Amino acid sequence: MNFCSDNTAGAHPKVLEALVAHNAGAAMPYGNDELTQRVEKRIAEIFERDCAVFLVGTGTAANVLSLAALTPPWGVVYCHPGSHINCDECGAPEFFTGGAKLMPIAGADGKIAAADLDGAITGAGVVHHAQPASISLTQATEAGTVYTEGEIGAIADVARRHRLGLHVDGARFANALVSLNCRPADITWRAGVDILSFGATKNGAVAAEAVVVFDREKAATLGYRRKRGGQLWSKMRFISAQFDAYLKDDLWLANARHANATAKTLGQGLAGVPGARIEHPVQANEIFVTLPEPVIRGLEQDGFKFYRWVEGGQLLRLVTSFNTEPAHVEAFLASARRHAARGTQAAQ
Amino acid sequence: MNFCSDNTAGAHPKVLEALVAHNAGAAMPYGNDELTQRVEKRIAEIFERDCAVFLVGTGTAANVLSLAALTPPWGVVYCHPGSHINCDECGAPEFFTGGAKLMPIAGADGKIAAADLDGAITGAGVVHHAQPASISLTQATEAGTVYTEGEIGAIADVARRHRLGLHVDGARFANALVSLNCRPADITWRAGVDILSFGATKNGAVAAEAVVVFDREKAATLGYRRKRGGQLWSKMRFISAQFDAYLKDDLWLANARHANATAKTLGQGLAGVPGARIEHPVQANEIFVTLPEPVIRGLEQDGFKFYRWVEGGQLLRLVTSFNTEPAHVEAFLASARRHAARGTQAAQ
Amino acid sequence: MNFCSDNTAGAHPKVLEALVAHNAGAAMPYGNDELTQRVEKRIAEIFERDCAVFLVGTGTAANVLSLAALTPPWGVVYCHPGSHINCDECGAPEFFTGGAKLMPIAGADGKIAAADLDGAITGAGVVHHAQPASISLTQATEAGTVYTEGEIGAIADVARRHRLGLHVDGARFANALVSLNCRPADITWRAGVDILSFGATKNGAVAAEAVVVFDREKAATLGYRRKRGGQLWSKMRFISAQFDAYLKDDLWLANARHANATAKTLGQGLAGVPGARIEHPVQANEIFVTLPEPVIRGLEQDGFKFYRWVEGGQLLRLVTSFNTEPAHVEAFLASARRHAARGTQAAQ
Amino acid sequence: MNFCSDNTAGAHPKVLEALVAHNAGAAMPYGNDELTQRVEKRIAEIFERDCAVFLVGTGTAANVLSLAALTPPWGVVYCHPGSHINCDECGAPEFFTGGAKLMPIAGADGKIAAADLDGAITGAGVVHHAQPASISLTQATEAGTVYTEGEIGAIADVARRHRLGLHVDGARFANALVSLNCRPADITWRAGVDILSFGATKNGAVAAEAVVVFDREKAATLGYRRKRGGQLWSKMRFISAQFDAYLKDDLWLANARHANATAKTLGQGLAGVPGARIEHPVQANEIFVTLPEPVIRGLEQDGFKFYRWVEGGQLLRLVTSFNTEPAHVEAFLASARRHAARGTQAAQ
Repeated sequence: MNFCSDNTAGAHPKVLEALVAHNAGAAMPYGNDELTQRVEKRIAEIFERDCAVFLVGTGTAANVLSLAALTPPWGVVYCHPGSHINCDECGAPEFFTGGAKLMPIAGADGKIAAADLDGAITGAGVVHHAQPASISLTQATEAGTVYTEGEIGAIADVARRHRLGLHVDGARFANALVSLNCRPADITWRAGVDILSFGATKNGAVAAEAVVVFDREKAATLGYRRKRGGQLWSKMRFISAQFDAYLKDDLWLANARHANATAKTLGQGLAGVPGARIEHPVQANEIFVTLPEPVIRGLEQDGFKFYRWVEGGQLLRLVTSFNTEPAHVEAFLASARRHAARGTQAAQ
Repeated sequence: MNFCSDNTAGAHPKVLEALVAHNAGAAMPYGNDELTQRVEKRIAEIFERDCAVFLVGTGTAANVLSLAALTPPWGVVYCHPGSHINCDECGAPEFFTGGAKLMPIAGADGKIAAADLDGAITGAGVVHHAQPASISLTQATEAGTVYTEGEIGAIADVARRHRLGLHVDGARFANALVSLNCRPADITWRAGVDILSFGATKNGAVAAEAVVVFDREKAATLGYRRKRGGQLWSKMRFISAQFDAYLKDDLWLANARHANATAKTLGQGLAGVPGARIEHPVQANEIFVTLPEPVIRGLEQDGFKFYRWVEGGQLLRLVTSFNTEPAHVEAFLASARRHAARGTQAAQ
Repeated sequence: MNFCSDNTAGAHPKVLEALVAHNAGAAMPYGNDELTQRVEKRIAEIFERDCAVFLVGTGTAANVLSLAALTPPWGVVYCHPGSHINCDECGAPEFFTGGAKLMPIAGADGKIAAADLDGAITGAGVVHHAQPASISLTQATEAGTVYTEGEIGAIADVARRHRLGLHVDGARFANALVSLNCRPADITWRAGVDILSFGATKNGAVAAEAVVVFDREKAATLGYRRKRGGQLWSKMRFISAQFDAYLKDDLWLANARHANATAKTLGQGLAGVPGARIEHPVQANEIFVTLPEPVIRGLEQDGFKFYRWVEGGQLLRLVTSFNTEPAHVEAFLASARRHAARGTQAAQ
Repeated sequence: MNFCSDNTAGAHPKVLEALVAHNAGAAMPYGNDELTQRVEKRIAEIFERDCAVFLVGTGTAANVLSLAALTPPWGVVYCHPGSHINCDECGAPEFFTGGAKLMPIAGADGKIAAADLDGAITGAGVVHHAQPASISLTQATEAGTVYTEGEIGAIADVARRHRLGLHVDGARFANALVSLNCRPADITWRAGVDILSFGATKNGAVAAEAVVVFDREKAATLGYRRKRGGQLWSKMRFISAQFDAYLKDDLWLANARHANATAKTLGQGLAGVPGARIEHPVQANEIFVTLPEPVIRGLEQDGFKFYRWVEGGQLLRLVTSFNTEPAHVEAFLASARRHAARGTQAAQ
């Protein structure tokens, strides 16, 4: 009954089966095997466009390699203050870019508004200032919301006007995609995205992320960057095998739909709990909810695990995953209601 | 019939089974799970010493994180010219250290001699020069040989005298260990080694390496470095599960013994092939052999895969692994003998 | 009649004379000359404490070398949003620290308040977050104000509690010092400052800055950093000669008093101009004043040079220097009054 | 009587006079003054080609900014083992390039031979290896010799074939130029050089170096690199003033001719001293001579200052400069002869 994160879940059984299935025989290392090449093509098909694909082992790596491909050491990366690259990478973006500056652009529900971004871009061509270079959006956002195709397009317009690269951190890309019920291309290159961190780990893989570069010219340095970044697996077939299973028969979409659906149930249920306040629209697999302290303590005592978003605060983040059991959601809601009811009685 | 590298092999079935076995249930991410903590302790037991352990996904990462912990940006890393860190990491050591300088110390059979190292260390305390900081040995070496306990101790003496850190790239540590038939501690901390890249990938894992720091003080920065280096897996249990199986019932030693034994058979067989010259003692799982060009072509035509060590040259590197089939070794030797015999006839 | 910056002024004649005076004869390079050693001692005397001194050529270099000595690549530097290191160094702090993160702490009149700083420091010891490492104050500030001894002490308390290094960007240190009428030690090490960028360039030198490290242990890496940062002059005597003249007979204090006094006159005069608003207390040699657009245009037409603080805006920054002529100040005020009067008449 | 280096000399009086002459009045900072623009044009005239010029304060900075403009972080810089960038910059090239690898190419008399260079370039396009990116020659070399136009051209051919950038460290460019008696263009862009570190400091300036980029496209990043490298002087007029005087009336050529002529006299004189061996042709302002130990001690006792090239060895480096007094040269020779004669007598 763990709602801490989608990375507390294990991997989908089919992903593990694929590791076993592709274990037989010799395979050339470092991605020079047939399976890897097949997976790279499959990803291109899914995005309906020729693209350069770089498989890596972690989301941090996918993000910072992407940013490094778009941002010189003296560049500025515009991002949401709450974005993973800004808060939770221990300076990995600065490290991989060689010293770029992350410039936070605040915005409601974890999203950057195009107009705010536009207003924040200054200093181009002036040697005293770090240079506007790239934008990084998170899709689904760290607030559990989703950028629409139109919102991304508006930001891409700003990017184009200022000649900035546009990156999307898609650690939860599948969750956003099924939420929007559109095609992968619609919210990536067709909307103006240059590079996508296409995450699989949180949605059922072991450790598998892909840097998908929609314009091959922007990929020129990435082979070298991946290698010297320590991300070129010798037994690359084992990342590829994960993606092979992940993408086969739309497993990735099914996984995301399950996670989103359980999140929806959980969010809707919590909205009806006395004293609860849902902080952001529940559009993917995360719920941000403020609860009365006694309810939080009650849930903890009942064995549920989750994070208080700020230490000691009453704002909780609850995350569902591809294998969250509906029964656990129901149990969580029941517990919350029970403790809320007690609080109400006590207050009377 | 692939002798290109030990990374063309897949993973040992028991390693894959462990992934499945540890998949059940929720586990806290980023190494905060019980299995990871158990594996870290198990590694400490094997080395008979309290030590700090950092699990990562690639050998490149293990090496360069280790070097970064021992070397400031203005430091010098002394290493063999043929070492992986010097030749095959696309500048990863320079990247992770923030600009250190690799200073190659030549030596026979892939090894650095203590006296040569001692003579090469200059410039300490003089601001004009990059500063002597660390030594990196490869064990087993890139020439398929093995440093003895005494050789490592002699180098450690030099290190101590000059206050340098001592790192061992143990991508093939198991192969060296069983070759020397000693205890892990004997050729690491007891001999004066500070940090070991303890590799499992080449010897039967999927993607699993451990940075083992024998002096906890030298580990102070590594948690941050691993995270910002993109190597802190969210689902860390899946590296830990590999190590769990790898170390259980001495699987790692059995794997290495198999690889070494097949290498020995292959090396001894080749030594008897007319026109063949074994270039380095075969002490681990690699054979460096020079063969007549017609023999090489014949082997290629018979479907054997291997690398010419220099493009177009006649020096071959042959690598065996934990699952190299003895029948393949026999077939290789038979093919080599057959083609060599033809050459001898043709010359008569 | 240039009020753009104190760096539009040339050097004080005595500084240039010193270059000539110390030109004779051979001198050992890279700071191994007697003059440099004498100057380093003189600086220690002025600060009433043994300290390590590193002479460099630019203020950017002094600041970023200082920050690098106090901040690991994964560190956070807390600074004012308007600070030079945050806005005007094209990412130099990120470059020299190897990727540290600048975290702006807003505050009135260009100053950081200790309580705000305290509240912003989070994440220590958690590998996901960049690590609190150092604080950088600007003295005098970029708003032309001055931190009192007490304000610095309060910030130093926060620093000590969180184990952060405390740096002061003293490009205009002399201006702050004479404004406070205290001893150099009072607002540096006695108040808890670890490293001072002790600027001379803006206050009458050609190109001369000193990194003054009050605790020699914190200076251990700076010799190497200065060299590889391209700041170790071969003919170091020529920075030293500047400091020799700068510090002799309190020239530096006289220069700063002149600049501050003319600024005060200018500020007081402007305060009486109809429509003018002084934005920050004038405590050093900068005036921030908002003026009616016609007044600004009139001043420009009369040949005065200055910066609009934001392009197209009516907030001006006026800077005086060691050689600002009182007549120019009077002329500026007369022009402003004249144009303001016209505006008043026109409005009537 | 100091022959340690050309940087033990002061500055030429005309250079200092220029500082005074250009001190009057306000000048816009950071190179936005008329004098700087005039000097940049003058340098372009001297090189008979439109070029981008970046003035900086040290030779280290000029070299490493140049290398950074030509070399990605994963690049290889080919250079002579004895080059300043390889030996004497404390890792500055690695720092400014973001981690490039210096690959030494040995060669007689401090020079790289085109064929040796050609043979050393490997690994292009293979992600495992640092990528061939640039070549750096030193002119005059660290052995006091000079590359001919033809030698540079041959190296430039190799560069072109492998698509490498070609940099020249011209800390002693003037000495090479007058030695060859050719035009500046002949041994730079016309021969295939991309970027020149055009040094003035060693040849009579205070602190003045220019990065001269012959192809403006290769200069695109240098403005930002100079600023964040801490090399954009606020009072830039003071570097420009140095160059103004240095280039006026061919002062730079006269200075270099004097230094070379005194070196020639010294070299020829030493060649006649019993037991002396001149190690490299004396083509610029440095003499490398091996002398009997008693002669060296005698010279030291007579008050002459110079470096033993290797600590404790008998190989001396003697450097003359723009203001070396002929009488000092004569005194040095007389002393050497006297001590050598004593040695000869003693041996009889």
